[in-house]
Amino acid sequence: MDPTGAHGKIAPSVSRDGLSIKVIDQTALPSLLRILDLSDIAEFEECIRSLRVRGAPAIGVFGAFSLAICISNGMGPDDAYSRLVSTRPTAVDLRNCLDLVLAAFREGGPEAALTEADRIREDIERSCKAIGEHGAALFGEGVRLLTHCNAGALAAPDLGTALSPIFHLHSSGKRPFVWVSETRPLMQGSRLTAWELSIRGISHRVLVDAACAFLMRKGLVDAVIVGADRVCANGDIANKIGTLDKAILAKGFSIPFYVAFPMSTWDPTCPSGEHIPIEVRGPSEIAVCGGERVAPDGSECWNPAFDTVPAELITAYITDRGVLKRPGKLSILPR
Amino acid sequence: MDPTGAHGKIAPSVSRDGLSIKVIDQTALPSLLRILDLSDIAEFEECIRSLRVRGAPAIGVFGAFSLAICISNGMGPDDAYSRLVSTRPTAVDLRNCLDLVLAAFREGGPEAALTEADRIREDIERSCKAIGEHGAALFGEGVRLLTHCNAGALAAPDLGTALSPIFHLHSSGKRPFVWVSETRPLMQGSRLTAWELSIRGISHRVLVDAACAFLMRKGLVDAVIVGADRVCANGDIANKIGTLDKAILAKGFSIPFYVAFPMSTWDPTCPSGEHIPIEVRGPSEIAVCGGERVAPDGSECWNPAFDTVPAELITAYITDRGVLKRPGKLSILPR
Repeated sequence: MDPTGAHGKIAPSVSRDGLSIKVIDQTALPSLLRILDLSDIAEFEECIRSLRVRGAPAIGVFGAFSLAICISNGMGPDDAYSRLVSTRPTAVDLRNCLDLVLAAFREGGPEAALTEADRIREDIERSCKAIGEHGAALFGEGVRLLTHCNAGALAAPDLGTALSPIFHLHSSGKRPFVWVSETRPLMQGSRLTAWELSIRGISHRVLVDAACAFLMRKGLVDAVIVGADRVCANGDIANKIGTLDKAILAKGFSIPFYVAFPMSTWDPTCPSGEHIPIEVRGPSEIAVCGGERVAPDGSECWNPAFDTVPAELITAYITDRGVLKRPGKLSILPR
Repeated sequence: MDPTGAHGKIAPSVSRDGLSIKVIDQTALPSLLRILDLSDIAEFEECIRSLRVRGAPAIGVFGAFSLAICISNGMGPDDAYSRLVSTRPTAVDLRNCLDLVLAAFREGGPEAALTEADRIREDIERSCKAIGEHGAALFGEGVRLLTHCNAGALAAPDLGTALSPIFHLHSSGKRPFVWVSETRPLMQGSRLTAWELSIRGISHRVLVDAACAFLMRKGLVDAVIVGADRVCANGDIANKIGTLDKAILAKGFSIPFYVAFPMSTWDPTCPSGEHIPIEVRGPSEIAVCGGERVAPDGSECWNPAFDTVPAELITAYITDRGVLKRPGKLSILPR
C-alpha cells in the first residue's frame, strides 16, 4: 500500500475489509507506517486501549466495524458492545457509533450491522469534508493557526476535523501555516499532526505545549483550532489534556478559538463539561519517555488524558452543517 | 561522596576544590548521580552549554569559580570573561557574578578573584536560606504548591530559590505538597525537582505542563512558586519556557504567583522583559525524546528556552531581604 498516494493523501486510518479491519498503528508513527489487520474482539480492545487507533471519530468508526464484525462472527451483541464501549470513556463517538450499529442489528441482523458501520464511516467522511469547506471560509491567505494534539486524517477518516480546513486552505493555494503543540505525554502533535502536515507539504513548526503562551504573546497566532472528544448540550467540550490552557490563553490574547467536530462527537444527553468522565491513564506515560526514565522511581504522576473547556471560551464550532456560535442549534437542524 | 548525606541533603551542586570545580552532572539525573571534576575553560564552557550545570544562581557560582580558576591558571581575564559570558544569554546571574570576580581581580589579583568567587557562593547560600525562611511564612500547614522547572538545590546552592520555602516548611513539619510540572523539553521538573523532593521525602506528583490549567480549575493548587533567570527594574522576569502560561492561568484562577530569587538574579540595568535576550536552543531537544525521534525529519521546531512574565501577573517576590510587592525596592534596601 502506498501510504501517501497520488495526492499526498494518507491511507485510510481505519477501513473494513470483509470481516477484518485495516488500521494504521498510530503508536509506530512517525518512524514507521505499520498497517494492522485485526479480526477479533481481543485485538479490537487492545488496539483502542493502546491508542493504536485514536481520535474520537476514528475510534467511533473502528468501534462500529468492530461490533459489526463481532456480531457477524456469532458473538453476543451485548457482550461485544459492553467490552468495546468500556475501552475509552471520554470520547462519545465510540458509544454513539456502537449504539447505531446495535440498533441496526436489532432491526436487520448481522448484515444490517455491517452496512450501518459502512454508512457511519461514509457519514463521517462526508462530515469531515464539509467541516473543511466551512472552516476554510473563516481564514484568509497565509493564516497562522495553532492546533493541539491530532485531529487530522488519522483521527477522523478521511480528512480530519481541525486539520480539514487546513488541508482545504492548502489545496486552494492559500498557504496556511500551522503551529503544532507537541501534546505530551504521547506526542500526538509532533508524532502525528506534524507527520500529516509533512507528507502534504504544509508549512508548520512544532513547539512544546508550554511555549504556546509565549507564542501568542509574540502575536504569531491568528486562531486556535482543535478537535473534540465530546461536545455537550451547553457547548462545553472535552478534548486532549492541554486544550483548556490554550482556550484560556487565546481568550486572554483575543485570539479566536475554534472547535471542529462531526455529528458523532455531539452528545445532547450530556448537559455540561462536569458530567464528562475524564480518563486518567497510567503514570508510565509521563515517567518514561522514549524508553528512558525521566522521573524518579519514587515519584507519583497525575495523568488525566483530557480536560474540558467551558463554552464561553469557544468562539465558534465548525461542523458539517456550518459554523455555529452554539452547538445546541445542531439539535434542530435537519440532517 | 554520599550524595544524600545524613539529612537527605544532596551534595553541593557546585563547589570549588582548589583549581578545579566539582559539579553534579544534571543531565544524568535522575538515573545517575555523576560528579564531574572540571579544570579548564573548554570544560567549563561545555558544562554550561550542555546544561550539565544549570539554574541561574548555580551558573553564576559556576561561572565565578570558572573565571577565577582561568585567571589563576594564567589565562587572559578578558578572554576568559567573554568566552564564559556568552555561554548562556538569558540568566543574568552569570554576567553579574563574572563582573564581580573580574572587579576583584583588577583590585587584588588572582587570589582575590578566587576569594570573591567563594564569597559569591556563600552569599547565594545565605540568600537561599533567607528566601526559605521568608517564603515559608507565606504558607500554612499542608499547602499545595505548583512549581515549574527546577529552582532547587541543584539550581541554587545550597537550598534553592523556589524550593527553599518548601524545604523549610517540610523541616518544620508543615507537610507541604508539591505539584511538579515536568518542563519540556528537557524535563527539569520531572528529572530534577521530583528527584530533589524524592530524596527528602516530600510529597509530590508530576504532571505534564499542559495539565496545569485543568489542575488549577479543579481547585488543587494554593499557590504557584517559581525561580527566575533575570528580574528587571520594572519587576518583569524571565524564567523557563512555560512560566508565562502558569502566571496567566494563576491570575485567571485567582491563585497567588510568587517568584523567588537571590540578588545575583536582579538586573536593575534591564528596564523590562522585552529587553531580555531569550535563548533559542536547537530543534533536537524537541524532535528527539529519550533517544527516540518524535517529530518527522521534515518538521521544523521552535525551541525558545525561556519566556518572560510581566510584573502585573506576579503577586510578590520572595528575596533574601523579605517578601516584596515590587523588586525595585531592592535597589534602596541596605545589603
